[in-house]
Amino acid sequence: MKALTALVVLLAAVLAARAAIQKETIEYRHADTVLEGFLAHDDSVKGPRPAVLIVHQWKGLTDYEKRRAEMLAQLGYIAFAVDIYGKGIRPADPAEAGAEAGKYKRDRELLRARAIAGLETLRKHKNCDPIRIAAIGYCFGGTTVIELARSGAAVAGVVSFHGGLDSPKPEDGRNIKCKVLALHGADDPFVPGKDLAAFEAEMRNAQVDWRLVKYGGAVHSFKNWNAKGGMNGAEYNERAEKRSWEDMKQFLAEIFK
Amino acid sequence: MKALTALVVLLAAVLAARAAIQKETIEYRHADTVLEGFLAHDDSVKGPRPAVLIVHQWKGLTDYEKRRAEMLAQLGYIAFAVDIYGKGIRPADPAEAGAEAGKYKRDRELLRARAIAGLETLRKHKNCDPIRIAAIGYCFGGTTVIELARSGAAVAGVVSFHGGLDSPKPEDGRNIKCKVLALHGADDPFVPGKDLAAFEAEMRNAQVDWRLVKYGGAVHSFKNWNAKGGMNGAEYNERAEKRSWEDMKQFLAEIFK
Repeated sequence: MKALTALVVLLAAVLAARAAIQKETIEYRHADTVLEGFLAHDDSVKGPRPAVLIVHQWKGLTDYEKRRAEMLAQLGYIAFAVDIYGKGIRPADPAEAGAEAGKYKRDRELLRARAIAGLETLRKHKNCDPIRIAAIGYCFGGTTVIELARSGAAVAGVVSFHGGLDSPKPEDGRNIKCKVLALHGADDPFVPGKDLAAFEAEMRNAQVDWRLVKYGGAVHSFKNWNAKGGMNGAEYNERAEKRSWEDMKQFLAEIFK
Repeated sequence: MKALTALVVLLAAVLAARAAIQKETIEYRHADTVLEGFLAHDDSVKGPRPAVLIVHQWKGLTDYEKRRAEMLAQLGYIAFAVDIYGKGIRPADPAEAGAEAGKYKRDRELLRARAIAGLETLRKHKNCDPIRIAAIGYCFGGTTVIELARSGAAVAGVVSFHGGLDSPKPEDGRNIKCKVLALHGADDPFVPGKDLAAFEAEMRNAQVDWRLVKYGGAVHSFKNWNAKGGMNGAEYNERAEKRSWEDMKQFLAEIFK
């Protein structure tokens, strides 16, 4: 019991020493487009460490994704919340957001290129271990990170949180070199059963190392604490939020070990 | 860094102090049938603790389930590997095993009663916390623990590892009071897609707190280290074994907290 108490005290000391989260806005480019991302890492840790790229929802890079970057930095990662749309392009309402996201969903090559611009910006950071990078994304961002994997990008793994799973080119599954984790609300009305089935078939046919988790009772946007009483079929779900965060942590621990 | 080293040394000491696993064979009854289970717990820990009931595969209680009981005891639980078939009934080959398992799959009331006999034996043990009990099972045992949940049994949660998910009485999903975790090989040929869909519908309609994980590339018996080069469609998968064990640990930590 004494040993356990000492353990807890030490653990607290170790955690407290790790709390210096450094945040910065980073401007970078894809071709002629200026993009503006957000980087967070723990300044008290020195040297390269595993990294997590974060891709935003359909409203572009918001405080939500920045908060996730901080949370990942607190876990010891360097986290970069990227910008797919371009500096200042932050749709204010669902109609605008749908139109903006639609541009990229229709042009998957452009979507991949924007994600890769963020990935390579992160990879060059002095605190980033260039061979231990994961990409995670929410809704539109979930679609994006799976598309990034389909591009054959050199990442260790991707995690989609309530992302759209459809692909206009399922044969691109064969380009995937990384592990794939899809975290899905079992009652999500925005991801049709046929898309789920096609996604599974794509992963299976390409012999990808993949996993799918279905959270009972969860709909679209289950991770988004701002989605409350809003759109039909999109709702924050604390239970699924906590569980999927644990599932992501387990996945990152596995791919970075 | 010094603090971290001290932390690791202390942790090792704490773990070493917890290694006294006590094992015993326990005879118990259901009506006139004598059953013989296997119990494991850490003798160096005193007093009631969370408990895990383990239900065997189609060959009855074997060394495999006993080893799982020891592994769970090492995690700090009291674990009881039950006997559904009866003392000495341990089918030697797949034909016999199929015939024996079939008796219970056709008579779900009997299957539930046998599982409950084991559950109540465990609950009475002086080291068992009677309100923190989970049930886990492999293949036939997976089917059994979901059936146990459908009986309305007072358990905190059930975990099925590559279990059959079909139900002759889907309306019994409404009896479920516990959390349900189904861990499934995405390429398991013994669990038809229609059973998976019916299981999901049953959970959804009954508003159960449920989760399903599909492990890509895994078939039936992915947890069973004895299933090697044997039956078509049943094969040990180290990757899925490790991941599903982590998923179970996370589930137990959640339901017992």
